[in-house]
Amino acid sequence: MGLGEQLTVVLHQTRSPDNLGAVARVMANFGFFRLVLSDPATYAFRGAERLAVKGEQVLERMAVARELPEALSECVYAVGTTSRTQLKGRVPLTPEQAARRLAEESARGRVALVLGGEQRGLSDAELAVCADVLVIPTSEVQPSMNLAQAASVLLYLCGREGAQPALPPEPEPGARMGTLTALGTRMNEVLLASEFLNPQAPEHVLREMERTLLRAKLTQREAELWLSAFKHLGRGVKRGASAS
Amino acid sequence: MGLGEQLTVVLHQTRSPDNLGAVARVMANFGFFRLVLSDPATYAFRGAERLAVKGEQVLERMAVARELPEALSECVYAVGTTSRTQLKGRVPLTPEQAARRLAEESARGRVALVLGGEQRGLSDAELAVCADVLVIPTSEVQPSMNLAQAASVLLYLCGREGAQPALPPEPEPGARMGTLTALGTRMNEVLLASEFLNPQAPEHVLREMERTLLRAKLTQREAELWLSAFKHLGRGVKRGASAS
Repeated sequence: MGLGEQLTVVLHQTRSPDNLGAVARVMANFGFFRLVLSDPATYAFRGAERLAVKGEQVLERMAVARELPEALSECVYAVGTTSRTQLKGRVPLTPEQAARRLAEESARGRVALVLGGEQRGLSDAELAVCADVLVIPTSEVQPSMNLAQAASVLLYLCGREGAQPALPPEPEPGARMGTLTALGTRMNEVLLASEFLNPQAPEHVLREMERTLLRAKLTQREAELWLSAFKHLGRGVKRGASAS
Repeated sequence: MGLGEQLTVVLHQTRSPDNLGAVARVMANFGFFRLVLSDPATYAFRGAERLAVKGEQVLERMAVARELPEALSECVYAVGTTSRTQLKGRVPLTPEQAARRLAEESARGRVALVLGGEQRGLSDAELAVCADVLVIPTSEVQPSMNLAQAASVLLYLCGREGAQPALPPEPEPGARMGTLTALGTRMNEVLLASEFLNPQAPEHVLREMERTLLRAKLTQREAELWLSAFKHLGRGVKRGASAS
């Protein structure tokens, strides 16, 4: 399957029906149909159809998730969009690199392009759940792009990648982010209980460890292996704690 | 001067303030500030400021022309955007080729990217005054893009070209389309009077001749030379007619 079938557009904390409709239309323009709203800031999306010219099928098939990790749970790869060029220790991809990367990763399963939130962009925590981040280079005069216009640029580039012959699918399906999130939660518990992580600020070290696993491009089977390993470690640690 | 200074965005028969505002914003996003409205379908553009976030300076400097040739009169090159892939005998440029071409031609003077009209796109006659036409490849499901979203894709690509070091300016300024339009009008008169053109349908042959002159990339001086030559030819033909 190529990028056309595998790409999911995730709109985080959408509040404008106009933007939603415009994104649905440009998705249809470039042959993409999977749209997920994550933690929408409103549910009054009636108005969207007005702008979603011939994008109705995108809106009909649209899914809604309570939070970003849930929106990404079925995906093996996600790239988050940000207008900020200063990203603590992360090197942003160019739009072209991101489109190429999405096409490559689509050989392992579903991939996500994350946009939003309309007010202040994606937070560090939200970007942290994305394997990569991308920045659309803009002028200092007006660095911040409208959501639907940023989507137009990125989906045009993804459409071009989608037009290339699809890469042969990987023999093993990639780890779904839902499984990786469960793994992260379990690692957090166990590594706190074993007094490895600092209870005051566990996130930073945990995120680093999680990112290494993302970089390893685990298969779904390997991710489940890790999850089950940490379940056993958890029981072991608990036994140790009650024994002492 | 680079593409940033030389690119003029021409919106033909704009009717939506929202589109105008959105285009002004994305122009500012990518560092472009020359906007011309050609034959606007309305003048009620108050609403545009609302969407032109930080694009006000684009709207303040915006010019209005009664018709497309007037909007292009100062430009040495124009590329017209169309969603139709069937173009009688004209090979459309890809968006990337068009951006490259605009950057190259900007060494000769001002260049124009023409978009619109919102209802039915640019007519054949309107596209005929553009040296080139471009098509943004879209899916059959929804081939027609929103104006502001098409502008986003094209101005992003132009912004990338603009980021390249500007080509050295040509020693001689290129022929302004205003002069070329005057030449075309004069050629039409004289070639009809001399019974070269068929009075029933002069356009087709005339357009072909005009296009060869466009292709020749005349300097302003050469264009004025041709214009003056046809003025003299006109007088000669008139004399011949009255003599007989």
